[in-house]
Amino acid sequence: MNSCALPSDGSCASGGGGALSAFYCGLSRLTIQLLSSAPAASDANSPEASRVISILLIIAMSLAAFSFHLLNREWHLTRDVRLTLEGLFDRVPDLADYVELPSLEDDGGDDDGGTTTTTTTKSDTAGGPIPALVDPSDPTTLRCFSPSTLEELGTVPILSADRVSDLALRSKVAQISWSATTFAQRRRVLRTLQKYVISHVDEICQLCVRDSGKTQVDALLGEILTTCEKIRTLLHHGETWLEDSKRDVNPMMMHKTAYVQYVPLGVLGIIAPWNYPFHNMLNHVLSGIFSGNGVVTKCSEHTSWSSVYFHNICRAALESNGHDPELIQLCTGMADTGRALVECRHIDKIFFTGSPDVGRHVMAGAAPYLKPVVLELGGKDAMVFTEDVKLKDVIPWAMRGCFQNCGQNCCGVERLFACPLSGNYVDCGAMVMDRQCDLVQALVDDAVSKGAKVHCGGKRNTSGGGQFYEPTLLTGVTSNMRIWKEEVFGPIMCVITVPGDSDEICVQMVNDCPFGLGSSVYSASTSRALAIGSRFKTGMFTANDFAVNYLIQSLPFGGVKESGFGRFAGPEGLRSCCLERSIVVDRIPGIRTSIPRAIDYPMNTKQGMGFGKGLIKLFYGDSIWLKVKGIVDLIKHG
Amino acid sequence: MNSCALPSDGSCASGGGGALSAFYCGLSRLTIQLLSSAPAASDANSPEASRVISILLIIAMSLAAFSFHLLNREWHLTRDVRLTLEGLFDRVPDLADYVELPSLEDDGGDDDGGTTTTTTTKSDTAGGPIPALVDPSDPTTLRCFSPSTLEELGTVPILSADRVSDLALRSKVAQISWSATTFAQRRRVLRTLQKYVISHVDEICQLCVRDSGKTQVDALLGEILTTCEKIRTLLHHGETWLEDSKRDVNPMMMHKTAYVQYVPLGVLGIIAPWNYPFHNMLNHVLSGIFSGNGVVTKCSEHTSWSSVYFHNICRAALESNGHDPELIQLCTGMADTGRALVECRHIDKIFFTGSPDVGRHVMAGAAPYLKPVVLELGGKDAMVFTEDVKLKDVIPWAMRGCFQNCGQNCCGVERLFACPLSGNYVDCGAMVMDRQCDLVQALVDDAVSKGAKVHCGGKRNTSGGGQFYEPTLLTGVTSNMRIWKEEVFGPIMCVITVPGDSDEICVQMVNDCPFGLGSSVYSASTSRALAIGSRFKTGMFTANDFAVNYLIQSLPFGGVKESGFGRFAGPEGLRSCCLERSIVVDRIPGIRTSIPRAIDYPMNTKQGMGFGKGLIKLFYGDSIWLKVKGIVDLIKHG
Repeated sequence: MNSCALPSDGSCASGGGGALSAFYCGLSRLTIQLLSSAPAASDANSPEASRVISILLIIAMSLAAFSFHLLNREWHLTRDVRLTLEGLFDRVPDLADYVELPSLEDDGGDDDGGTTTTTTTKSDTAGGPIPALVDPSDPTTLRCFSPSTLEELGTVPILSADRVSDLALRSKVAQISWSATTFAQRRRVLRTLQKYVISHVDEICQLCVRDSGKTQVDALLGEILTTCEKIRTLLHHGETWLEDSKRDVNPMMMHKTAYVQYVPLGVLGIIAPWNYPFHNMLNHVLSGIFSGNGVVTKCSEHTSWSSVYFHNICRAALESNGHDPELIQLCTGMADTGRALVECRHIDKIFFTGSPDVGRHVMAGAAPYLKPVVLELGGKDAMVFTEDVKLKDVIPWAMRGCFQNCGQNCCGVERLFACPLSGNYVDCGAMVMDRQCDLVQALVDDAVSKGAKVHCGGKRNTSGGGQFYEPTLLTGVTSNMRIWKEEVFGPIMCVITVPGDSDEICVQMVNDCPFGLGSSVYSASTSRALAIGSRFKTGMFTANDFAVNYLIQSLPFGGVKESGFGRFAGPEGLRSCCLERSIVVDRIPGIRTSIPRAIDYPMNTKQGMGFGKGLIKLFYGDSIWLKVKGIVDLIKHG
Repeated sequence: MNSCALPSDGSCASGGGGALSAFYCGLSRLTIQLLSSAPAASDANSPEASRVISILLIIAMSLAAFSFHLLNREWHLTRDVRLTLEGLFDRVPDLADYVELPSLEDDGGDDDGGTTTTTTTKSDTAGGPIPALVDPSDPTTLRCFSPSTLEELGTVPILSADRVSDLALRSKVAQISWSATTFAQRRRVLRTLQKYVISHVDEICQLCVRDSGKTQVDALLGEILTTCEKIRTLLHHGETWLEDSKRDVNPMMMHKTAYVQYVPLGVLGIIAPWNYPFHNMLNHVLSGIFSGNGVVTKCSEHTSWSSVYFHNICRAALESNGHDPELIQLCTGMADTGRALVECRHIDKIFFTGSPDVGRHVMAGAAPYLKPVVLELGGKDAMVFTEDVKLKDVIPWAMRGCFQNCGQNCCGVERLFACPLSGNYVDCGAMVMDRQCDLVQALVDDAVSKGAKVHCGGKRNTSGGGQFYEPTLLTGVTSNMRIWKEEVFGPIMCVITVPGDSDEICVQMVNDCPFGLGSSVYSASTSRALAIGSRFKTGMFTANDFAVNYLIQSLPFGGVKESGFGRFAGPEGLRSCCLERSIVVDRIPGIRTSIPRAIDYPMNTKQGMGFGKGLIKLFYGDSIWLKVKGIVDLIKHG
């Protein structure tokens, strides 16, 4: 943690950077002292050592990646050779000819990567309170602002229900031919996207930074890396996951073949949040189109400006490969536009990511149409440190868990349970929504009024002019405080002390929460971590790591309780874009089933009952004797 | 079809039997003539031949069942030996000591199996119009009637919301220790049930017959056989389906192990319909408790009398094996009791089977609580005969599809598409709900007024005194009639002629329907049947067979569109009783993940971006050159 000797900066926007940097540095030191009473500079000679180690590790990983792939027991020779050859010889088009991104100058240069300015915007509102997204004089236009500078970035139209329906219908029409494409054709579209993303990392990060106020590194790790891994996973596993799933048949049905088919549902409606404008759109577009569906996205009103560009990238990937780009549609607007999408008759399923309150409305709104919904709602994830961990090992995780993306993560850490310890850090961007700063403040104030202690932060950072909230360390949090149960979605680290080092009490405290998304336990003993974590009522759990589930895209992502239901990612997520169809056909050509005469209409009850009871004794009787009696019955009544 | 020479009877209840028997017989003849103009007695010598063939087939099947099991490629030696030994040596308790069923005398004797009378009931209402289920003078009591005799069978209490909550809480408490039971313990409970059911087939059938008006054979095939197969499937596959599901990790995460765990959700709320009072309760109780959950069932107000007995059987299976029977609860009452279950905070998920209209209410009612729902709603299943089938082979299927359980099946056939043909049949029980008879009549009248032709039936059968509707054959059904799209849920066979033998038009006509549950195509060519069926938008499809999916319990059951969403049965159904948890742990003991310094807080943006881009190039770059550049980046910035 002595990397505070290095130059560091807030990096997300002009203003907050420099000031915050020194602040975080101090905060880290403070936390270490609080948690361990250890001297902050105890391993002063480690930077060079850790650098050498990490280089060696990286080389080892690169080499191991290939050999691991060969050794993996789920390795499929034919598939892997085929996919590798496909990737090598099928050169995909370059989207640069199809997409034009805004030129975002970087006045800080690449060496500090931070302070950026916008060239396309009016800056008349910069520095002041954020203006209304919709000007009452022009109710069909949505204004887009940068939360870190409050500059206006541009405008997008607010779509009416008719317009939403029109776009969904276009997608529905395009989906008919798209559903007939091969997986190879769909992979080509995905590889086209992958290639473009990798060669435009800076530009996409800049768009995210500008529109959502996050730092560049948050954008790189949270938007680009996750999307690249999603594409890689779909390229590698997608076809396998959507293959017919063969099912065992029982002895009575041995003349049948049974399997489940995954058929595209039609058009998926996505309501995406603002915390990851690039990834949250592509996430569903990728799985939606890979599984053969059309996709209509309602992006957040807070990040519509960048969404338009991201949407164009996706459409270009279709168009450049000769497919109808109308398959993918973007709806900009406020809540009414989202409601129109939920109620639109051309939309076959809704994937909503957002708050529990809006989730309730989405589910209730879908009910009259019997439309299935996947709800990915909030979280109040717990991170637990048992007393046997080394603080210097775990504090970086607490820092990342709490402050990554300025705390605005579905599965960000909101509760840090420490066993014998008490206490905790950050390169934080801006908060996307101004009113979220007010909520965070209210939660902090409530906690303080009930005895919690603010060790640093605890208030807005007004120095930069944007919507910044200081990274905050709060200890002494107890169950009578609002912050114990309510989602913060901001850069607050709440430290909760577990009395008596009790794992049992720890489990109870973690589960005393309306949410159930992610969780993690850090312990010297992996089995102890697993034993504790397996009792958390959460949709995801990581031992000695944080949120790494999401970088393993073969795992389903989702929660329980107020965190919602349904899953995306993994085979579960891909199949949830599909109609799961059960199919039964005759196994042996020429052999057809006919209805035994005893149970054919018109029916003799005695014969029918005798025959049916014979079947039951033969196939389900628990003794040879019963089975023989069953055969006798069948012969007698058959 | 010349089995009409055999004695035959309505079999379900006194009254309708004899009269209906001759009727069905004539109907079958009429249908054959209508469809084929073939003489009805064309294969008069077949009864004996088919008897010999069916006996030989049964013996062959019995022998093949064992060898098939050995040859099955999904055969697992260890598991199968273990389960077989468990079944052989673990003698389960006899529930006869725990359960007392009402003594139902059968005044028709076993030889015709039909006419039964009730010994426990007042018969003052017999023969008249069915009285109200709730007497206004006693709003907390629900009266139970037999639909075939209109006799009052008894009463059950109408539970208040508080009482529902109390019962759910008891289940929740019992579930804590139940969730810690082994699969062997749960299998023992299931084997106890299986043994009891097999040795009490007649008694359970009688209860179903009495309470729902169905025929004994309908009860045997629809209630007993399905339940036995469900138990067998859970015994055989259940543990495997709930085993941790290992997931591939990607090269970047090769030091991790990833898997999905299936954890009991808690307490499941079941809202069951009246068409299969025994199976529809046990279906969910079995999968619910096998997956470690508590189960609270709201049974239909139309079949509460038998539900109480069935519920007692389930509780006895728990109690006789030393488990707390409070794990399973039954709520009797009207719609308000169902609503209380949906809204009860101790219930973690709702499984509803019923009509689309009530489904909408259930989903809307669950929305404020963000409670997941599985909706199994109606169907309007199509059965298609292509022009190349032999009529005598397929007519028995049409008969069974349309008239089994008096047409009151989720996946009963409601639309019979015949290519060059035009036309169709029944041992039908009583209709459970009197008002359903009115709906059926309205749909038939509407169709007739718009040009459909009634070949037989088409009206109530008042001769028996119960709620009977004559099995009806309707031809000339077109898309302007209500019956084209509305669910009938009664014994009506609608024949729709597909113009020009066109498979394409047939697919369009089948999909022109708000429902999407099951479907079947009969064709001389299986591949043609599959080609047609694969384009139906339905949750299930069978080639040259009907509804056999449900006897293959490893297949998921459920629909799409107005038929609802979510699945039961199969691994999908069992896992849908669970919280699917994604877990990540370190693969190699001693090797822990640490956050690379470049992206640890406080952060240097240049280093962080350089490192992150290196990762992306290394793992997702599409050329060796990019991957090498990635390694260089990682070394430079790591």
